[in-house]
Amino acid sequence: MYHDTALVTLLACLTCFYASVRVAKARTRFGIKAPATTGNSDFERVFRAHMNMLEWMPIFLPALWLFAIYVSDPFAAVLGLVWIVGRIMYTVAYAEAPEKRRAGFAIQALAAFALLIGALVTIVLRMVHG
Amino acid sequence: MYHDTALVTLLACLTCFYASVRVAKARTRFGIKAPATTGNSDFERVFRAHMNMLEWMPIFLPALWLFAIYVSDPFAAVLGLVWIVGRIMYTVAYAEAPEKRRAGFAIQALAAFALLIGALVTIVLRMVHG
Amino acid sequence: MYHDTALVTLLACLTCFYASVRVAKARTRFGIKAPATTGNSDFERVFRAHMNMLEWMPIFLPALWLFAIYVSDPFAAVLGLVWIVGRIMYTVAYAEAPEKRRAGFAIQALAAFALLIGALVTIVLRMVHG
Repeated sequence: MYHDTALVTLLACLTCFYASVRVAKARTRFGIKAPATTGNSDFERVFRAHMNMLEWMPIFLPALWLFAIYVSDPFAAVLGLVWIVGRIMYTVAYAEAPEKRRAGFAIQALAAFALLIGALVTIVLRMVHG
Repeated sequence: MYHDTALVTLLACLTCFYASVRVAKARTRFGIKAPATTGNSDFERVFRAHMNMLEWMPIFLPALWLFAIYVSDPFAAVLGLVWIVGRIMYTVAYAEAPEKRRAGFAIQALAAFALLIGALVTIVLRMVHG
Repeated sequence: MYHDTALVTLLACLTCFYASVRVAKARTRFGIKAPATTGNSDFERVFRAHMNMLEWMPIFLPALWLFAIYVSDPFAAVLGLVWIVGRIMYTVAYAEAPEKRRAGFAIQALAAFALLIGALVTIVLRMVHG
């Protein structure tokens, strides 16, 4: 069983939900009624912070689980937590200004690629060495 | 094997595809040519209904499977079916008016959170009690 | 273990990342500053090519893995590679003109549905025949 990775997966899901709640609140605050998603750049930054997380979820989740299975469950979970911290930083900072999103972006990208490359190398080694 | 959850997963995938087909049809009907996604609120509601499903897929699918693995396969599948019903209601009703999307949204949110919280509590209990 | 499918999954993640890098480059090239995603149809085609891949990831990945588990790991991987080829064709061609995206779209849709229907039929047969 992969308890650590399972737990971090659900924390990532909750982080995704948190980013969507911020969008719902920003709709009210900046007067952007559904279905519109444009027209106010303060709203758009909150909206795009959520979208960017969605863009990374199908990279992060498969990389996280394949790393957990092929490399290590607790190490996957630690990198997953780093990813979540980077995503929260990105989400909060992007709402303030576009430039401020860079630090959080870099952290989550490094964590995601550590998971992806770690899993990729291990899978290829297993295929080659049987 | 998790036959029930596997089947419901593919039904959720087909529901996602159904929402995207509605967007393609709405492009023709309301004269919104790709790559545009704005300019007509009738089109935008159909478009956003699909997008909202995409926003929930990376919450729903991990929660569904971790619930299936840690709690129960058939119970996960039943909650998954409720989620799909909520999503179809949301997709159809949002196309009519933004206010009408609330019932379907509430149903799918409750089903997704039942899966997520059920899995989360069970994982934590397993970690604590070994 | 499902080495072939695991490897193809990570290649799909990298393809997703590649499509997002094209969006970042298109931002600079066509002068569309974050958080904006509209205002220039050259940029919008690159942006929508990435978005369309994201729309298919939650259909493709579950179908790929359930096909691998219920039908065949290497056959899933081959169909997964076809899907990736279709996605790259779509991404590159859509950046040139909306009409050009049809061939890549058809290829990836056929591969995704072969995976989905293959898994669906096998799961139902298993449920019926125990």
